[in-house]
Amino acid sequence: MDVREIEKRIEAVSTPPVNKVAVAYSGGLDSSLSIELLRRKYKAKEIVPITIDIGQGEGELAQSRRYAQALNIEPLLLDAKAEFANEWVSMAIKANASYEGYPVSTSMTRQLVARKVAEKALELGCDALLEGSSGKGNDQYRMHNVFTLFAPGLKVLVPVRDFDLTRSEEEVLSEAWGVPVAETLPGGDDKTMWCRSIASGAIDLNQEIPDEIWMWLVPPEKAKDEAETVKIEFAEGLPVALDGDRADLAELIALLNVIGGRNGIGLIDMFEDGIMDLKSREIYEAPAAKIILLLHRDLEGFCLTKDEILFKAGIDQKWAYMMYHGEAFHPLRYSLEAFINQTQKTVSGRYEVKLYKGNVEIMNRESETSLFSPEIRSIKAKGFDQRWCRNAAYVRGLPYQILAGRGRKK
Amino acid sequence: MDVREIEKRIEAVSTPPVNKVAVAYSGGLDSSLSIELLRRKYKAKEIVPITIDIGQGEGELAQSRRYAQALNIEPLLLDAKAEFANEWVSMAIKANASYEGYPVSTSMTRQLVARKVAEKALELGCDALLEGSSGKGNDQYRMHNVFTLFAPGLKVLVPVRDFDLTRSEEEVLSEAWGVPVAETLPGGDDKTMWCRSIASGAIDLNQEIPDEIWMWLVPPEKAKDEAETVKIEFAEGLPVALDGDRADLAELIALLNVIGGRNGIGLIDMFEDGIMDLKSREIYEAPAAKIILLLHRDLEGFCLTKDEILFKAGIDQKWAYMMYHGEAFHPLRYSLEAFINQTQKTVSGRYEVKLYKGNVEIMNRESETSLFSPEIRSIKAKGFDQRWCRNAAYVRGLPYQILAGRGRKK
Amino acid sequence: MDVREIEKRIEAVSTPPVNKVAVAYSGGLDSSLSIELLRRKYKAKEIVPITIDIGQGEGELAQSRRYAQALNIEPLLLDAKAEFANEWVSMAIKANASYEGYPVSTSMTRQLVARKVAEKALELGCDALLEGSSGKGNDQYRMHNVFTLFAPGLKVLVPVRDFDLTRSEEEVLSEAWGVPVAETLPGGDDKTMWCRSIASGAIDLNQEIPDEIWMWLVPPEKAKDEAETVKIEFAEGLPVALDGDRADLAELIALLNVIGGRNGIGLIDMFEDGIMDLKSREIYEAPAAKIILLLHRDLEGFCLTKDEILFKAGIDQKWAYMMYHGEAFHPLRYSLEAFINQTQKTVSGRYEVKLYKGNVEIMNRESETSLFSPEIRSIKAKGFDQRWCRNAAYVRGLPYQILAGRGRKK
Amino acid sequence: MDVREIEKRIEAVSTPPVNKVAVAYSGGLDSSLSIELLRRKYKAKEIVPITIDIGQGEGELAQSRRYAQALNIEPLLLDAKAEFANEWVSMAIKANASYEGYPVSTSMTRQLVARKVAEKALELGCDALLEGSSGKGNDQYRMHNVFTLFAPGLKVLVPVRDFDLTRSEEEVLSEAWGVPVAETLPGGDDKTMWCRSIASGAIDLNQEIPDEIWMWLVPPEKAKDEAETVKIEFAEGLPVALDGDRADLAELIALLNVIGGRNGIGLIDMFEDGIMDLKSREIYEAPAAKIILLLHRDLEGFCLTKDEILFKAGIDQKWAYMMYHGEAFHPLRYSLEAFINQTQKTVSGRYEVKLYKGNVEIMNRESETSLFSPEIRSIKAKGFDQRWCRNAAYVRGLPYQILAGRGRKK
Repeated sequence: MDVREIEKRIEAVSTPPVNKVAVAYSGGLDSSLSIELLRRKYKAKEIVPITIDIGQGEGELAQSRRYAQALNIEPLLLDAKAEFANEWVSMAIKANASYEGYPVSTSMTRQLVARKVAEKALELGCDALLEGSSGKGNDQYRMHNVFTLFAPGLKVLVPVRDFDLTRSEEEVLSEAWGVPVAETLPGGDDKTMWCRSIASGAIDLNQEIPDEIWMWLVPPEKAKDEAETVKIEFAEGLPVALDGDRADLAELIALLNVIGGRNGIGLIDMFEDGIMDLKSREIYEAPAAKIILLLHRDLEGFCLTKDEILFKAGIDQKWAYMMYHGEAFHPLRYSLEAFINQTQKTVSGRYEVKLYKGNVEIMNRESETSLFSPEIRSIKAKGFDQRWCRNAAYVRGLPYQILAGRGRKK
Repeated sequence: MDVREIEKRIEAVSTPPVNKVAVAYSGGLDSSLSIELLRRKYKAKEIVPITIDIGQGEGELAQSRRYAQALNIEPLLLDAKAEFANEWVSMAIKANASYEGYPVSTSMTRQLVARKVAEKALELGCDALLEGSSGKGNDQYRMHNVFTLFAPGLKVLVPVRDFDLTRSEEEVLSEAWGVPVAETLPGGDDKTMWCRSIASGAIDLNQEIPDEIWMWLVPPEKAKDEAETVKIEFAEGLPVALDGDRADLAELIALLNVIGGRNGIGLIDMFEDGIMDLKSREIYEAPAAKIILLLHRDLEGFCLTKDEILFKAGIDQKWAYMMYHGEAFHPLRYSLEAFINQTQKTVSGRYEVKLYKGNVEIMNRESETSLFSPEIRSIKAKGFDQRWCRNAAYVRGLPYQILAGRGRKK
Repeated sequence: MDVREIEKRIEAVSTPPVNKVAVAYSGGLDSSLSIELLRRKYKAKEIVPITIDIGQGEGELAQSRRYAQALNIEPLLLDAKAEFANEWVSMAIKANASYEGYPVSTSMTRQLVARKVAEKALELGCDALLEGSSGKGNDQYRMHNVFTLFAPGLKVLVPVRDFDLTRSEEEVLSEAWGVPVAETLPGGDDKTMWCRSIASGAIDLNQEIPDEIWMWLVPPEKAKDEAETVKIEFAEGLPVALDGDRADLAELIALLNVIGGRNGIGLIDMFEDGIMDLKSREIYEAPAAKIILLLHRDLEGFCLTKDEILFKAGIDQKWAYMMYHGEAFHPLRYSLEAFINQTQKTVSGRYEVKLYKGNVEIMNRESETSLFSPEIRSIKAKGFDQRWCRNAAYVRGLPYQILAGRGRKK
Repeated sequence: MDVREIEKRIEAVSTPPVNKVAVAYSGGLDSSLSIELLRRKYKAKEIVPITIDIGQGEGELAQSRRYAQALNIEPLLLDAKAEFANEWVSMAIKANASYEGYPVSTSMTRQLVARKVAEKALELGCDALLEGSSGKGNDQYRMHNVFTLFAPGLKVLVPVRDFDLTRSEEEVLSEAWGVPVAETLPGGDDKTMWCRSIASGAIDLNQEIPDEIWMWLVPPEKAKDEAETVKIEFAEGLPVALDGDRADLAELIALLNVIGGRNGIGLIDMFEDGIMDLKSREIYEAPAAKIILLLHRDLEGFCLTKDEILFKAGIDQKWAYMMYHGEAFHPLRYSLEAFINQTQKTVSGRYEVKLYKGNVEIMNRESETSLFSPEIRSIKAKGFDQRWCRNAAYVRGLPYQILAGRGRKK
């Protein structure tokens, strides 16, 4: 691949005039190269790189700083960790987050990042926003919606997409232009406290997953032989203590990622239907999410009525759908969350669970707000005589008398 | 507890005159005692015990025969195994059967049994039907609906419920009257090929489950140390071959119960909201169901569109709800199944899975009807240029321009 | 029909001992007769009749007072008009209330009445509650749930049902015992400000409805020849002004019942599936409800996003279902309402409508919070070039490329 | 506007080489101009104009022929009237078709036309397809999907969109090039037997609709003073006879458009959320659809169970959504229709209705497959004693005992 050819192709694309450009800067290949493109192609007068800390970890942030230095930029660092934990991950838990099995994580962070960057850009008087998504994934759609809503009128630059660059072309350019390139997994490696996305869409259908890929996970067959027991307490839908110690949500998740991971828990290997309705095989690593979501669902079974459980399933499905599809700031989301938050007021309790080579087994459950009342079936003092059910069965069966009269039509 | 007192209470209850009574006879305590009640209390002129083979296993059937002999009755034996596998379990698979996590099994057999008994009773000119449910569970409702629909006008006798007998009263009576009593698990033990119900509602909330309870399952910690690999082929939504050998559904499930069980797979320990909206803790043992349902869901992710997958979730939820609530012969069920069957026409493929101490890991997936097309993202020949997505993102974001104009209202 | 025979039947029924009994007293036949039954049969030591004003109108209340005098009781009168309008009818509007076409009215008042009576009973130290429902309708179920929740442990007396009395038996008894009996429509006549229920279930399938039955309605063919125009303003989902004059909801509904009725608007003639799944033909008269609900739905089309409109349809259906089925105080209701209230924050606007012989035609619509933005399709300055849609169409059609490759399977 | 300027703009757009092009030719401005563009700009070697008769009426077809002559082309005429009536409109009726109030008509015809043209094009060896949609509406998306599925690989030309032409530019070009131009309503006028779309999106928000616009409708205030009575018979969900005479669906609809229209029935004036989520005000004229859909819904209330009615509402909503959004050949559609068709097997009956100045009043309903059984409430022989409901109410209220114990949390 010839660098001149790529450069020519880029030159040929007409781009809007820009003045001061806010960049969602992560330190990855895409955003690093974008800085250089802003200088060479877009001729930006001023570049405002912004890095959002959403819990990607100190390793990522340190690399981001090194690359920034190499690029001679000084990104603003905005801390959104607490906001991510308390306003996004917390809702994912309450909503039993699952989009086809994926607990929606990158889906959320991209939108949080986009909002922070958009708001900062407005505050600093920028006239354009730049982000590093490729054109074939989901993130460009997510960030575009959020940019449009929070910084209406600002130009949106998505160079990888808009110059139609492939990964190898990006690498060729970076080398030629002196842009630092990290080694990453083939399809990328997106870390958040809640769930790590690995090699998104780039692992072949039946390719085995190598052990080195994992950050927390020891696969079940290699996990230790002794089971481990943990106690987790929930209040109003959220985990609030681990083994008796109160912890904020971010800490608690960090701990469970380690504990769950070493016990073989956390692999998600699934088909995912992207925003453009194209399927990819996705690999996620999410020990804490797997444990918390499993217990949260059980606790809802303990504390909510049948009707709440069944109806909420549809609400939860829609919530995860919206997050995944980049609709986190759509008005409907707030209505779904109003529903969900109301249901969680009685979802409180304590669990003791055994973790063993990929298994999460509930040993003990307790709740002061539960609706589990085995005594109501037995205490005659309360007047529940089996014979009453005869009439109940009869009345319940009345419509079948009518159906029998009509003759069943299959 | 004094037997005379119980007898007096029974005497005091007024019962309808009956002539020839068809009995759903399983050989369990309830149905055995009912035979004697038909003689002593209802004064039935003729008793027609009917046993339905729905795959409860030779052990159960043999015991049933022994007890029948002791009671001096000769039950008709109707074989509904194939019908159960091919018309009920098959739909449970296609519908990803899950009522709050329970793959609905007894829920189905009770209704199949009720229909068979009702139809036979009509054929033989009976004027009443008897079944052995207690008054506080779900089965009485299920059987009542089916009796009403398939044998309208026949009297329905449910002695345990209608004389308000407790389990211990039943035992006292049985001993006094010479009715054979099997030793069973506290809350009963309902075996079907698809899922075994254990101690329904009678296991306390935090009671540990003893290993002896299991029929197939070796709990993960005691399961063997070597993983086992199996190949399963699906055609139009149903498993049709195991390790390359074609097998009918009933056989295949029987084999997977053994294979799955010895690898620690099959425990379900859950809260369940009964027909009367009362919660119980339920324990099920279902190795084959767990494996098949997990693969079936994955295969749907492989072969169905996003829209089908998401919309079908609501159809599946309703199907399981209806089965559980005794509405198997309600007209709506046929419409749900028409929907489900249509979706399954392209759900075909082959899986290789590793079973290991409670884990089911997919090693290989293949399908000729899949919609997984990774090449469509990359092949430029097909004209998919990343730049096209710029406009797609723009058009998709138009509503956010309008929302931005209105001012977001949270 | 012999009064002695009925009395004997009543005597034969065993009833629980009661001391101080709170009675939901409306002044109708059922509740008046109940007072006498409390004296003669239940031997209540103290009777506490309670009348709840939910806007049934001065005529009904005056009759209630006259009959109370005749029975020598002095009912407590509790005013719940504002609560009914502001906490119940308002939600019915926001939820586009429709249970199979019925705007749920009596369904709501019965539960409001039951709560008020239960709370007062507890306050006054009663040990039992009495209400006058018959056994074959919906109201007994509604009131039972509410009594159980708000006055747990108190005995619930429903004499008409529990002595299995027919309407004519009630009349025979009333005459014999000197209980005053009003002339009413065959199936009763339940007035509320929101919707009047007429002859519930007692009008035959194809019976023509006589003009005299109507309170507000002049049927279209007899309505006046000139159209009438009204202006209605909505704020956050609720009508707040009529023809420019602010009015509280109760007033505004009262006015629209008159105006709508004289223009032929307000008849509902429908099949309704009762709580026991039995169908009845129901006739309702609801001029204001018809106008307000039609405009509210249009205003939602004006101010909500597509996704909100379509998703809310399922929420609204469930809300009306719960109200109808006596589940107004079920926890799920509060979650549904949290959702609904959140959506209504931008549902504000002004309407001018023409009313003419049964037709409601919208002449003018205005809203400051609307999402109607015809300019976005045309103004090029905003960058919306038709050619962009080519790519949007292409990207949107990608899944069809894959489907075409698989071969369509019908 | 200068014709040369427009021509220059067109020249500047690069278009793919095409050989033999199938054109969806309606005779309207867009498709007529397209013929000339194929000659001048695309340099097509062969043009295959295809006109699909979907019941737009003889007037439209005659004009289409005249314009074809003027353009010197001889379109193939394919008759799809019966297919449209029997496979599309019939489903719209069974599905109570309503997308936000619109009975989906053009939405369907565009997809039927696209399929016919695509199949013919394949048969005749074409390498490209052309259709006349503008870029800002819904039709381009609908036709694109269908073209992609039924003629994969063929080039898709949409000149109005792809040259970004406005209506007035099209007129200028047409005049200059000698292309015949019909006078039409501002936003177009799409006639189908089922529903006529008028001036789509081009009528301002509060613009009054002039009487001349109507084809069938006499507005209520001008409609005749005598009511008219008609009898309509339904079999398995579809109207099959009018006033006792059997008629096929197309005939029956044609007759009802006239009869309904002269009685003031048929106006739909609504907000509609387009495929791109942009709102427009839409005016439709659909007398037959209004009458048939109203009766069909009532008949479902007569013949279906509560559960079928409520659950089907969600199925119907999705069906209309898919039709509207151009997903008529998506696999999910066939599953929805399998559901719907199954429900309709018992939806049969006869109606007598009075039509009067915009009102449709049901005078008489009869059905042999109804579930309306008023006798079941009253006949004691069947054993329905009011007292049974006491226990039913008690059992139904059990969950409220538990909720009362927990303390309600709002």
